[in-house]
Amino acid sequence: MTVLRKHLFDLPEGVLYLDGNSLGPLPRNAVARAREVMTREWGQDLIRAWNSADWISLPTRVGDRIGRIIGAPAGSVATGDTLSIKVYQALAAALKMNPERRVILSDQGNFPTDLYMAQGLIGTIDKDYELRTPEPELVADAITDEVAVVMLTHVDYRTGRMHDMEAITRAAHEAGAVMIWDLAHSAGAVPVDMSATGAEFAVGCTYKYLNGGPGAPAFIYARPDIVESIEPALAGWMGHEEPFAMDPAYRPAMSTERLRVGTPPILQLSVLDAALDAWDDIDMVELRAASIRLSDLFIAEVEARCPALTLASPRDGAQRGSQVSFRFDQGYAAIQALIDRGVIGDFRAPDIMRFGFTPLYLDEDDIRAAAEHVGTVINDGLWGDPKYQTRSRVT
Amino acid sequence: MTVLRKHLFDLPEGVLYLDGNSLGPLPRNAVARAREVMTREWGQDLIRAWNSADWISLPTRVGDRIGRIIGAPAGSVATGDTLSIKVYQALAAALKMNPERRVILSDQGNFPTDLYMAQGLIGTIDKDYELRTPEPELVADAITDEVAVVMLTHVDYRTGRMHDMEAITRAAHEAGAVMIWDLAHSAGAVPVDMSATGAEFAVGCTYKYLNGGPGAPAFIYARPDIVESIEPALAGWMGHEEPFAMDPAYRPAMSTERLRVGTPPILQLSVLDAALDAWDDIDMVELRAASIRLSDLFIAEVEARCPALTLASPRDGAQRGSQVSFRFDQGYAAIQALIDRGVIGDFRAPDIMRFGFTPLYLDEDDIRAAAEHVGTVINDGLWGDPKYQTRSRVT
Repeated sequence: MTVLRKHLFDLPEGVLYLDGNSLGPLPRNAVARAREVMTREWGQDLIRAWNSADWISLPTRVGDRIGRIIGAPAGSVATGDTLSIKVYQALAAALKMNPERRVILSDQGNFPTDLYMAQGLIGTIDKDYELRTPEPELVADAITDEVAVVMLTHVDYRTGRMHDMEAITRAAHEAGAVMIWDLAHSAGAVPVDMSATGAEFAVGCTYKYLNGGPGAPAFIYARPDIVESIEPALAGWMGHEEPFAMDPAYRPAMSTERLRVGTPPILQLSVLDAALDAWDDIDMVELRAASIRLSDLFIAEVEARCPALTLASPRDGAQRGSQVSFRFDQGYAAIQALIDRGVIGDFRAPDIMRFGFTPLYLDEDDIRAAAEHVGTVINDGLWGDPKYQTRSRVT
Repeated sequence: MTVLRKHLFDLPEGVLYLDGNSLGPLPRNAVARAREVMTREWGQDLIRAWNSADWISLPTRVGDRIGRIIGAPAGSVATGDTLSIKVYQALAAALKMNPERRVILSDQGNFPTDLYMAQGLIGTIDKDYELRTPEPELVADAITDEVAVVMLTHVDYRTGRMHDMEAITRAAHEAGAVMIWDLAHSAGAVPVDMSATGAEFAVGCTYKYLNGGPGAPAFIYARPDIVESIEPALAGWMGHEEPFAMDPAYRPAMSTERLRVGTPPILQLSVLDAALDAWDDIDMVELRAASIRLSDLFIAEVEARCPALTLASPRDGAQRGSQVSFRFDQGYAAIQALIDRGVIGDFRAPDIMRFGFTPLYLDEDDIRAAAEHVGTVINDGLWGDPKYQTRSRVT
C-alpha cells in the first residue's frame, strides 16, 4: 500500500516541492474548512461558537490527533502558541523537577530558537544555570549527574542527522536528568513513540510535515504520570482548572490542559485539524520506508551528477530524518536558481542546501526530475548569475 | 459624521450583538482575505511567500495599524502570541528594570489570566516576589516605593470601570515603578494615547473591539526609549537581530521586534489585518461619544423597565469603558434566555450580566430593541425556565 496521496494537496503546476520540511503545502480540504469556520461558526454563531462549535475543546481534539502520530496517548498533548513558547514551558517545568542541578544540556545542532529560549529562561530565573551545547555526536558523553535536563531536537534541522531517541533518553534518566525532545523535524516525518521512549516532554511544530499552514499552532506532550506535578511557568487562564470561574488564584487543570496558556487560535487550529485528516490512515512505518527510498534515490542521482556537492546528511538512511542536505559554498545562489526552475528547497547558513522528502505528495519521478535540475544548476553554473546573489530577508 | 458602518460586518439576521467586547463579529472582507492567503500565498507561493507576500513583516505592519488606534508610534507595537504571553513578556521585562524591588501591584478587577501569569512568573523566578491585588479603587494609594511594577487592566472586564490611565501612570513613575497597561477592553473601545501617557508597556488582544477573530494574535507596546534596554524573557528566534543567521547566541533585535517570539500566525494575522481596514478612518473621539450615547441609552432603557437589576458599571460614562454590566442573581440564566431571543450578551461569575457597545455596527434602534428584550426576560421571569440553568463549558 502506498502512502502517496497527491490529490489531497493543491500543489502548483510545474513545481517540485522539496521544502515540506519547512512549510508543508496547502491541503485542499483546508480552504473549505477555514471558510466554514469563518462564515458559519464565527460569522453566524459568534461568541456562542465556543460551545456550539466546541471551540473550547478544539486544542485537545487536535492534540489527540497529533498524539496518534507521535505515539502519545489521548489527552497527553496540548496545542497552541508557538514552538518557542512550548520549549520554554517544557524547560521551565523540567528545571523545577530537578531543583538541585544547574546544567541544561543541548547541542550545537539544535534549532537556534530552542537555545535562545533556554537563554531567556536562564536570564529570567537569574540563578547560576548553564547551557551546554556540545557537538551532536558528543551529547551522549556529556550527560553527567550535573545535568538537570537534556533538551534536544531529534532531527538536526541542517543535516537531518537523527539522535537515537531511546538511547539518549535512557542515558538521561540513568543520570537523573529530565528529557525534552523537540520533534519539529520528526512529527509526520519519522516514526516516534513517545510512550515507549519514556521521555518526560516533547514539543513540536505543525507547519512542516503536518501541513498545518504558516504559523500553525505548536504542541507539547507531557508524560501522563508527571502532569499533575508540573508547575506551569506560563500559567494562563486556559490552563486553569475552571477558566470561567474567574478565580483570582491560579489552580492548574489536573490534565495536560495545564499546558494551555491563552485563548486558542481557533482559525489556525481548524486549518491544522483539516490538514490532519490526511494522516488518519497513514502507517508511519510505510511512510518511513518511502521517505528513505526517496532520499536514497535523491542522494544517488545528485551524487552521480554533481561532484561539487558534499553530502552533509548521514549516508545511512536509518540515521537521517526525512531530509537530505548538501554543502556547497554557493549554496544560497544555487537554491535560488533551483527555485527559479520550480525545484523548491531551501538554504541554511552558512552553506547548506536542504531538501525535504514528503512521501504524501512526492514520488520517484519527482525525485529524478529534481535531481536532474540540481545537476543542471550546479554543472552549468547557473548559480553564477548575479541575480541569485542578493539575499532575501527570509532565506 | 457617523462611525456606524454595519455594511462592513456579516451579522446574522435577527441578532442584536452586544458581545463585541468578548468576540467581535466577522468583517466581510476577512473571508476573501483568508481565502487569498490560503490559496494564492500559501498554496501557490508556498515557502516563498515569506518574501513574495512579505509574511515576515506582517506582524510589524499589523502592529503599526494597532499603534494608530492606541496612540503609539510606528514600530513600537509587536504582534503575535496571546495576551497572556504578552503580559508575561512585559512583566518579566519590567521586573528586570527594577531589580531591587519585589512587589507587583495589580488589582482585584484585573482579568484572571494577568494575575495567573504574574503568579507563574513569580514561581519561575523563585525569589521573594509578592503580587498585591487591592480593590480597584484602592490601587492609587497602594503605589508605594516597594512597588516594582504596576500592572493593571485599563477597563475592568466585569464592571467596565475604567482606571485613570494618566494619573495612575504618573503615580507609578513618581514612586519609581514601571507601568504596564492591559488594553484588552480599551483598544478600539476608548481613546488611548500611549505616547502621551508615558507608560513603559501596554498589551492587548485583538479579538474583541478590533474584530480580529477567535484567537486572533495579541500585541505589546514598549515605549521606544526603553526598547533597547529590554532583556526578553521569551527570547524567540523571530526577536533575534538576524533570525536567519542561525546564530547559536541570542542577540535581540534593536527594535520592538525583540518582543516577537516564534513563527507568526500568518493566517490569523492576515484576518486581523483585514479587520483593521474598518479602522482606517475612524475618529476615536467620535467613536467614544457614540459609545457613551449608546451605553447611557441602554442604562436608561433597562433601568426604566427592570428594578430587579442593579447597575454594576459606573453611572458616569466618562468612568466606563464601552460596556455596561448589571448584577442579577439569576444572571447566568437571564443571559441564556436573552441569547435565545437573539440578544447576545454574556455572563461573568458570580452574577454579572455584561453588554458591550460597539458603535461600528450598533445604533440606537438596536439598543432600544435590546433593552426591550431585557425587560421581557427579567420581568416575565423567562430566566426561570430550567433549560437556562445548565452551565455550558464556556460562559
